[in-house]
Amino acid sequence: MLGIDPGLTRCGIAAVDGSIGRPLSLVGADALRTSPDADLPQRLLGIERGIEEWIDRVRPDAVAVERVFAQHNLSTVMGTAQASGIALVCAARRGLPVALHTPSEAKAAITGSGRADKAQVGTMVARILGLDSPPRPADAADAVALAICHIWRGGAQARVAQAQQDFARKVELARRARGR
Amino acid sequence: MLGIDPGLTRCGIAAVDGSIGRPLSLVGADALRTSPDADLPQRLLGIERGIEEWIDRVRPDAVAVERVFAQHNLSTVMGTAQASGIALVCAARRGLPVALHTPSEAKAAITGSGRADKAQVGTMVARILGLDSPPRPADAADAVALAICHIWRGGAQARVAQAQQDFARKVELARRARGR
Repeated sequence: MLGIDPGLTRCGIAAVDGSIGRPLSLVGADALRTSPDADLPQRLLGIERGIEEWIDRVRPDAVAVERVFAQHNLSTVMGTAQASGIALVCAARRGLPVALHTPSEAKAAITGSGRADKAQVGTMVARILGLDSPPRPADAADAVALAICHIWRGGAQARVAQAQQDFARKVELARRARGR
Repeated sequence: MLGIDPGLTRCGIAAVDGSIGRPLSLVGADALRTSPDADLPQRLLGIERGIEEWIDRVRPDAVAVERVFAQHNLSTVMGTAQASGIALVCAARRGLPVALHTPSEAKAAITGSGRADKAQVGTMVARILGLDSPPRPADAADAVALAICHIWRGGAQARVAQAQQDFARKVELARRARGR
């Protein structure tokens, strides 16, 4: 599972291996950086290349991207939105399923509270993955939290979808049985 | 010159041929559309593919993209920002120079007023290009206005850069002449 916390200056990216109900392990976490001095198209291109290198290297089954809201951080939100667009297209181009989770959803999945601070998220990420210390920088830890959130929530969603499919099949079988 | 008015539901795109001080001609103008029912990564991917097809077909020397602001249209601004990020990366990936112009700059370049309405922009676009009627839809006309704006402003900027280069060369020649 690849988690991406989009940003123009620092774009958190992390790969987590595992599935729901089993121990998770960290494949890697980092922040892709672009210089505020570079021009915008080059910065976005740098982020695209960084994400593509990660996808090539870790070959994820799915990608979880943080959902960006227009409400907060007006000064940086446009760059963040553009970076998130790049992340979504990188995944879609390779046919990878993409999920969007809000920061609150990721925090709640990891710490039990949607309003947990960065330190708390870092501590829980380290605990869940059996690390001595939280991944650095904080953007990398956020990307890890997002990946874990998606494995756990995605797992639940997949089970619900499976249960619905099973039910539909039973209904169909019952219908056919009555038809005979 | 390729002009792109980024948007998620309708992304205006237009190619204009010509240079400052000479008649301009319209190569083509259209709006790339994506369905609001499709999921976001697929929509962005559709926009990316549409822009790449245009670049392949018209082989522009440069790309002008409308600058997006966070201030207005909070409901659609995130999708617009993401689409603009895609447009910038498409250009940067091919090494094409990219310029950002605000809607006011484009309107002012075409109509003389930064607060001109859509009808006025359409009328002037048609007049400048010698068309019987404005390009449709309005997003396509906006993309045309952006391309014209960039040809005219870019031409002015290029002349300033050229004059500066000429001046620097004269200074250098004078310096060498004194050295002899």
